[in-house]
Amino acid sequence: MASDQLTDRPVVLLSHRGPISFRRVRGERRVTRGGGGLVSALMGLAGTLGDDAVWVCAAATAEDRKVAEEYQDHPVRVALSSSPHVLAADHSSTEPTISTRMVAVDKRRHDEFYAVISNPLLWFVQHGLYGQAQQPMLTNRDHLAYSRGYVSVNRRFADAVIAQVKHLQSTTARKPLVMLHDYHFYLVPGRVRAACPAVRITHFTHIPWPGPNEWRVLPPLMREQLLKGLLGCDIVAFHTRRFARNFLLCCQEVLGLKIDLRRMSVDIDDRTVLVRHYPISVDPTSLEHLTRSRPVARHRSRLTAAYLGEDRQLVLRVDRTDPSKNIVRGFRAFDAMLSDHPEMVGRVTFYALLQPSRQDVREYSDYIGAIGSVVAEVNARHSSDGWQPIILQLQNDMPLAVAAYSICDVLVVNAVNDGMNLVAKEMPLVNRRDGVLVLSENTGAHEELGPYSVSVHPFDVQQQAEALYTALTLSSEERRAMLSSAAAVIRHNDVHHWLAAQLADVVRLDGSGDLDDRDEGGDSGEPEDHRPGLTAGGPGRC
Amino acid sequence: MASDQLTDRPVVLLSHRGPISFRRVRGERRVTRGGGGLVSALMGLAGTLGDDAVWVCAAATAEDRKVAEEYQDHPVRVALSSSPHVLAADHSSTEPTISTRMVAVDKRRHDEFYAVISNPLLWFVQHGLYGQAQQPMLTNRDHLAYSRGYVSVNRRFADAVIAQVKHLQSTTARKPLVMLHDYHFYLVPGRVRAACPAVRITHFTHIPWPGPNEWRVLPPLMREQLLKGLLGCDIVAFHTRRFARNFLLCCQEVLGLKIDLRRMSVDIDDRTVLVRHYPISVDPTSLEHLTRSRPVARHRSRLTAAYLGEDRQLVLRVDRTDPSKNIVRGFRAFDAMLSDHPEMVGRVTFYALLQPSRQDVREYSDYIGAIGSVVAEVNARHSSDGWQPIILQLQNDMPLAVAAYSICDVLVVNAVNDGMNLVAKEMPLVNRRDGVLVLSENTGAHEELGPYSVSVHPFDVQQQAEALYTALTLSSEERRAMLSSAAAVIRHNDVHHWLAAQLADVVRLDGSGDLDDRDEGGDSGEPEDHRPGLTAGGPGRC
Repeated sequence: MASDQLTDRPVVLLSHRGPISFRRVRGERRVTRGGGGLVSALMGLAGTLGDDAVWVCAAATAEDRKVAEEYQDHPVRVALSSSPHVLAADHSSTEPTISTRMVAVDKRRHDEFYAVISNPLLWFVQHGLYGQAQQPMLTNRDHLAYSRGYVSVNRRFADAVIAQVKHLQSTTARKPLVMLHDYHFYLVPGRVRAACPAVRITHFTHIPWPGPNEWRVLPPLMREQLLKGLLGCDIVAFHTRRFARNFLLCCQEVLGLKIDLRRMSVDIDDRTVLVRHYPISVDPTSLEHLTRSRPVARHRSRLTAAYLGEDRQLVLRVDRTDPSKNIVRGFRAFDAMLSDHPEMVGRVTFYALLQPSRQDVREYSDYIGAIGSVVAEVNARHSSDGWQPIILQLQNDMPLAVAAYSICDVLVVNAVNDGMNLVAKEMPLVNRRDGVLVLSENTGAHEELGPYSVSVHPFDVQQQAEALYTALTLSSEERRAMLSSAAAVIRHNDVHHWLAAQLADVVRLDGSGDLDDRDEGGDSGEPEDHRPGLTAGGPGRC
Repeated sequence: MASDQLTDRPVVLLSHRGPISFRRVRGERRVTRGGGGLVSALMGLAGTLGDDAVWVCAAATAEDRKVAEEYQDHPVRVALSSSPHVLAADHSSTEPTISTRMVAVDKRRHDEFYAVISNPLLWFVQHGLYGQAQQPMLTNRDHLAYSRGYVSVNRRFADAVIAQVKHLQSTTARKPLVMLHDYHFYLVPGRVRAACPAVRITHFTHIPWPGPNEWRVLPPLMREQLLKGLLGCDIVAFHTRRFARNFLLCCQEVLGLKIDLRRMSVDIDDRTVLVRHYPISVDPTSLEHLTRSRPVARHRSRLTAAYLGEDRQLVLRVDRTDPSKNIVRGFRAFDAMLSDHPEMVGRVTFYALLQPSRQDVREYSDYIGAIGSVVAEVNARHSSDGWQPIILQLQNDMPLAVAAYSICDVLVVNAVNDGMNLVAKEMPLVNRRDGVLVLSENTGAHEELGPYSVSVHPFDVQQQAEALYTALTLSSEERRAMLSSAAAVIRHNDVHHWLAAQLADVVRLDGSGDLDDRDEGGDSGEPEDHRPGLTAGGPGRC
C-alpha cells in the first residue's frame, strides 16, 4: 500500500452526508464537494484510506438520485481535482479519487428518518435539550416515523454497505473494514454484523452520549434496539471519555449487560465490544492555507477597521443557530459583563457570526427569534454614540469566520452540550492577536483544551460574565501562553491523528483479539502506537 | 427500652416541615399536627424512636416563631392525643409524645433557601425538568440565594442539630443518632460531622437523584459542596437502587472519589460512606382506619352514583399540580384512548383530584394553566349527552382521595420522575373494585410494584393510551391477582419496615464498622436482620 496509507484493509465508509454531490447545470452533470464538519474531516483523509475505499451516503439532490439509479450498486469514482469530475472505474489517476455509492430513499420515509427521529428526537435527547415536563410528547406519529422511517432507512443503508462488503470480498483477499458514522445509523452495525459475522465494524457517534436517565427518555423499544444495533460493532467510538462511559452505563442499566469500566468494554452474546474515545479535530494545513487567501484578508481589513483600533476589543462567536449552542445565555452574559463593568461599554464589541440552521423545525425557528429578541434588548440597553454592543451576522461564510478568528480577542464557545466543537479548535490555529478561548465544560473539546482556556459553566450567566471579563483583561503574556499551548495541542492531535488512532486500534484488535494493553481511548496512545499495517492480513472473509 | 422501640440510641431528626405547628386561636396557643408525606410517615413511628427523640424543624407560622423564641435551644414536648397539647419536659405521659425544636430563620434568607434554591433549582435538576436550551439561567440572584440563603440556613439548622446532640451527650451515656431528611439540607451532614466527628449521621433524600450529566447542571461550587456535605454521613440513603447508584457515579465523576458499585460505598478522606436504598411506604393500619370513616363513605356514595353503575368505569389520578407529575401527557393519553376506542366514549370517566401546588413559582402557575387548557380541549372533543370525559377537581382532600381510591378501576401514576410516589402505594391497600395500577417506570415505586401494574413510559402518549386501554379491559381474574399481589408487597414493605431497615443498618455499622455482608440496600434484608439493640452501647461521645 502507499506510504501515507493508514490501513491495508479496503474501507467501506457510511455517513448521511456524502463527500460529493451532483447537480445538473445547463444540461450537464456537475460534481461539487460536500460540506459539513465530518465530511471536511474525512475528505482530507481520503488518500490515506486507499484507492479501493468506498463511501456510502444518501443521495441528496435530484441529480444524485439519477446517479444512484444509473450506477445501482456500483460506486461512482470521482477525481477530487479543483474541478472534480467522474472517472471510469478502472481509469488510473494521479489525483486523489473517491468512490461513492449513493443511496436513494423514498422521500416520505427519509423525512420520518431524518426530520422526526434523527432530528429533533435523537439530537435533543443526546444534547439534554428536553424540559421533560412538557417535551418530548411521543405520539403514534413518532412510533410510525421510527418503524417506517428510521428502521427501514437504516436497513436500506445497511444493505448498501453489505453489498459493498460482499463485492470487496469477491475481488480482493484483504479483509474489509466498515466505518459507520453518527446518530442516523445506530441500527446499521447490527444488520451488517448479522450478514457478515466476521467483518470488522466501527461506529463513531459525533454528538454527546447521555447517561442512562436521559437515554431512557426514549421508549423501551427504541432505546434497546438502538443500543443493540450499535453493539454489532467491534469498536463503538465517541469524542470523549465521558460519552464512552455514559454509553457503557446505558448498556448496563438499559440492557442489563456486563460492562467493564476499566477496560471500557461490554459483553454481548459471545462477543466483547470495545468502547473508545478519539477526539476529532481539524486539518491545520488546509485551515492555514485558507487563512492566507485573499477573501480572508479582505474580510480581516474590513472587520479590523470597523471594530478594532485604539484600545478596542472584539469578542467573537461562530455557531449554527442551534439551541444546544447556548447563544441566548451568551448574550445575557455579555449584557451582565457590560453592566458590571461600564468601562467596557463602547470598547468591546461582540461579533456573532451565526449560520441559520434547521429552520423547518419549530424549536429552531423559535430559537432564532429568541436570539433576535435578546440582541435587540441588550443593544437597546447599552448602545451609545453610534456604537452597538452586539453585531449579529446571520450567514454561513467560512472566509469571514476565519478572518474573524484571526483578529478576535476572545472566542466564546459556551455550548449547553456539544460532541466536540471544532470552532474551538479552529480559532487557536489562525489567531494573530493572542485570542483567548472561553470554553464550556460541556464541549468535547474541553477534555483537551480546558487547561488552556477560561472555562465556563453553560447554565451560569453570571459566571460567564465574569469569565468574559477575565478573558478580556488577562495580561498579554498569559494570553500568548494559553493560545500557543492550545494551538500546540490541536496541531498534535490533528484530524490525521484522529483517524490514525482508530485504525491503529483496528490493527491491534486484528493482532490480539482485544486492546488489553490500554486502559482508555485512543487519544492517550503514543504516536508510535499508531503505525499501520501490523495486521497479519490473509484472505478476506465476511 | 420499650419493646416496640427500634433503637436504643437517642435520635435527633431533622426535616424542613415539622410534626406539629402552633397557631393562636382566640388568644390561645393551639397545637396542630403537620402534613405532608414524610411527616405522616415519621409521625406514625414516633413511638418507635424512643421518648428522648428530638425533631428539629423550621418554624412555619408566626406562633411557631414565638415558641422558638420562648424555648430557645430547648425542645417543646407535645402529647399527640386527639387534641394535641404541650407537656412539661419532665411530665410523664401515657400518650405518645414528640419533642420538637423549631428553628426560626430570617424571612428573606429563608425565601432564598426555600423558594430559589431548594425549589425550583434543586427540585427541577433532580426531576430532570429543565429544557437546558433555555433553563436554568443562573444569575447573580441565584449565587446570592445559594450563599446567603441555602448555605446560611443549612448552617442554622446544623447548629440546632449540633446543640441537641451536645445536650444529649451531657445527659445520657447512649450514643446519639442523627437522621437528616431531604434536599433542603445537603450541607447539614458535613457541618455536624465537623463538630461531632464520632456521631452517627444518616441522610435520606426523598426525591430522585440524577446522573452526573444532570447534576452538572449545577455550577461547580454548588455541585461539589452539596455532594461533600452529604458525604459527612455514615449512610446516604435514597428510595431506589438507581438513585443510590447515580449518587455514587456523581461522587466519582464530579469529585473524583473512589467508589465501589458492588459494595455501594465511596471513600472520602479516611472514611467510607455507605450509600443505601430503602423504599419509603405508607402505614396500612391508619389508612385502612381512615377508609372505614364516615367522610370517606359519604364521598364514596356520591362518586359511585355520579360516575359508576351499569358498565361504566372510573380512571383516577391523585397528585399535586407539579410538572414532574406529568398531568398534561396523562390527559393527552386519555384523549388518544378515546379516539382509538370510541366505544369507551360515554363509558369511562377520568376523575382527576389535583392539589394546587407552589403557585408562587411561575413554572407551577403556568402548569396549572396548561392542565386547564388540555382538559377543556379534550372535554370539548369527546363530551356527549351531558357526559364529560375528564372531571377536574382542584383541591386537597384526603377522605375524598381515599374514597376515590376505593372505587376506581384504574389509577394513573405516569410521573416524569418521582422519588417514590405514595399514591401508588395507597390505592392498592384500600381499593374494592380490583383496581389496576398504571405506573410510570420513572417512579421509585416501580422497583417494587412494576410486576403488579401496567407500566407506562412517561414521554410516550401513545403507549400510555394503549396501557389505559389494556388496564380497562383486563379480565377480573387478572385485575384481582395484580391488585392482591401489589397490596401484599406494600403491606410487607410498610413504613415500619422502612425505618427498621435503616436502623438495622446503623446497628450493623456499630457492630462491624461496615455492612460487608450485604451487596445492596436495606429492602433486601430479611426481617430477622432488623432486630434492634445489637450494639454494644457505651458512653456517648460526640
